[in-house]
Amino acid sequence: MNTITQEKLAQAVALLNEHNIDAWVTFVRETSQTPDPALDILLGFGLTWESALILTRSGEKLALVGRYDADNVKKLAAYDRVQGYDQSIRELLTAEIKRLNPRTIALNYSPSDSGSDGLTHGMWLKLRDLLGEPFVSRFVSAEDIARRLRERKSPAEVARIRTAIKKTETLYDALFDLPLTGMTEIQVHSLASDYAAKQDVAFGWERISCPIVNAGELSSIGHGIPDTIKIEPGMVVHFDMGLRIDGYCSDLQRDAYVLRPGETKAPPEVQRAWDACRAALEAGRAALRAGVPCWMVDKAARDALVDAGYDEFKHAFGHHVGLKVHDGGSLLGPHWEKYGGLPDMLVEPESVYAIELGVMVPGHGYLGLEEDVLVTGTGAVYLSEPQTELILI
Amino acid sequence: MNTITQEKLAQAVALLNEHNIDAWVTFVRETSQTPDPALDILLGFGLTWESALILTRSGEKLALVGRYDADNVKKLAAYDRVQGYDQSIRELLTAEIKRLNPRTIALNYSPSDSGSDGLTHGMWLKLRDLLGEPFVSRFVSAEDIARRLRERKSPAEVARIRTAIKKTETLYDALFDLPLTGMTEIQVHSLASDYAAKQDVAFGWERISCPIVNAGELSSIGHGIPDTIKIEPGMVVHFDMGLRIDGYCSDLQRDAYVLRPGETKAPPEVQRAWDACRAALEAGRAALRAGVPCWMVDKAARDALVDAGYDEFKHAFGHHVGLKVHDGGSLLGPHWEKYGGLPDMLVEPESVYAIELGVMVPGHGYLGLEEDVLVTGTGAVYLSEPQTELILI
Repeated sequence: MNTITQEKLAQAVALLNEHNIDAWVTFVRETSQTPDPALDILLGFGLTWESALILTRSGEKLALVGRYDADNVKKLAAYDRVQGYDQSIRELLTAEIKRLNPRTIALNYSPSDSGSDGLTHGMWLKLRDLLGEPFVSRFVSAEDIARRLRERKSPAEVARIRTAIKKTETLYDALFDLPLTGMTEIQVHSLASDYAAKQDVAFGWERISCPIVNAGELSSIGHGIPDTIKIEPGMVVHFDMGLRIDGYCSDLQRDAYVLRPGETKAPPEVQRAWDACRAALEAGRAALRAGVPCWMVDKAARDALVDAGYDEFKHAFGHHVGLKVHDGGSLLGPHWEKYGGLPDMLVEPESVYAIELGVMVPGHGYLGLEEDVLVTGTGAVYLSEPQTELILI
Repeated sequence: MNTITQEKLAQAVALLNEHNIDAWVTFVRETSQTPDPALDILLGFGLTWESALILTRSGEKLALVGRYDADNVKKLAAYDRVQGYDQSIRELLTAEIKRLNPRTIALNYSPSDSGSDGLTHGMWLKLRDLLGEPFVSRFVSAEDIARRLRERKSPAEVARIRTAIKKTETLYDALFDLPLTGMTEIQVHSLASDYAAKQDVAFGWERISCPIVNAGELSSIGHGIPDTIKIEPGMVVHFDMGLRIDGYCSDLQRDAYVLRPGETKAPPEVQRAWDACRAALEAGRAALRAGVPCWMVDKAARDALVDAGYDEFKHAFGHHVGLKVHDGGSLLGPHWEKYGGLPDMLVEPESVYAIELGVMVPGHGYLGLEEDVLVTGTGAVYLSEPQTELILI
């Protein structure tokens, strides 16, 4: 029994009713190679052979799976009926769809939202062949329900995210206790790796670039892999790290400045940039409320930074955090084509976003801020302990 | 620089020519949520924003990726040209496709082979919208090239698989040196876990069921999780274990018999079953040659076992092993609908298969055999040291 899965399945049925959809069919196979992000929510583990998870607006929860996967699904005690098969899913699946005769069949595809886009094109072709008319004409995108199910975190989900954030902060504390000056990015990255391994916690993204460590202005900003650049006085050192604990993630950036001989604080150009970033992050957070179009939140932060005299950041201001570090769903971002329809979505209540922005300070390095927040009835509140001052090394 | 990636890209270009395809486009985004199995071969790490890897039959290798992913791709030194973008891939992508003007554009979708089916339906819709006619009419499945690229192992890939096999055999040796009698399945599983952790090797599938340990006939066969059943005299003890080292996997089963007081060998019914399994495995291996239809290899092993008086096994005889334990591509299996077109594919040279079968011996337990073999010009040769006799405990 897994209470989070049961909680989320009940939420899914409510969403089917809210969006007037009769049935939601998640159709997958060999999910270790081609996982469907919806499966993480609807099941919590992988499936091997062609499998269909069917939820209906009347509350039916069916799982049609290969024989050797059936026991695991039954043990979850979240589906009313679990049927195993040996040679083909065809009979089971067509019989259930004919019986339910849904006017709309929502499938996991979406040009905009990767989190709602787990159905492969090959499996879409296969489903079309299996079900035939009149059902193929009733296919619709499950985006409206799949993304909201992911976005609206249940209390148990928020609790797990909090745990991941807390551990990340502890790991950051341990890192900043080390004598970092003189170490290379690679050495710092490797110490963080060892620490995480000892604590048996998993990184939120590929180990080779988690944490991201950027020492000074020549470092590779973005999704860079640590380099042999040494941490030296006068540099801004920037970290980006996420952990994944009990299935849920954190995503936090932290910044330090390495004092030069005689310095007791960061130089004015670094401090000014830091203050501008902090203010812009807060401007974005203040704009982040349920029901607001996502692009407006991005704009609030973006404008604040530009008005302070800095270049606009080259990414979106905020993304969901949950089962993944980049959890899909809406995006607090500008109307850039690569973001598709995501910036026009409205902020959902109980969303957890990582909000982030940054500035390159010439001669010193990249300052990047990122905190995790929860959208509540009274606005966005920090789940992390926000970094309000530059760390001095 | 990653020589395996370079080797595989050269192989991909040869396959484009072999199959008369002008361009192969791998179109992905947010691959931590929706990975494309082809990316493991074509790149070796994930991508964030809409990205296109384009290979042409003339040997061009282009990567169009989001700005922050571009550095990592450049460092790989495997693509001739890496272009980063900020707001939209549209201009870059349409310009390249118009310039190349390919008569066929292969995309990663396949109703049969999950390893060739990494393009999501949403991304297929998006690509259709981005490219428009006349290019949409030139879309074809990349299955022919994608699966062969995965199936035909390069010498460097075979070397890595050999390493994983060798370590698996060492771990098995260590396990069989332990006083297993009286231990529960859970205890043995946990000792194997500890050993692997100490050696810093990763299991090939979910840790909770790797290795699979089956003590006696009441144990859960298949994808079962270890139980509290104790290993006792008279039992067959069956193991199934895979490791993943340097990205490549092994998959091997081993069997032991626990002697009862006074016994110096296994009882005749156990020995007969073992001999029948070994003979059937060898019959399958003898039939396994490049160019043979996959189902015929399965049939050779299946018939041998049935002719010896045993039930046929409820799974396919052989699956590819490589980047994954179940690596996709063709399947040495019977014509069951769930296997789609895989059993009708022909065996490719340089394939590495795990070949496996088993028999339940009433009163004693499950005997399962599995070895890893390489398809060479002179037939299938063992990469593993095959178990030719029952281990006696």
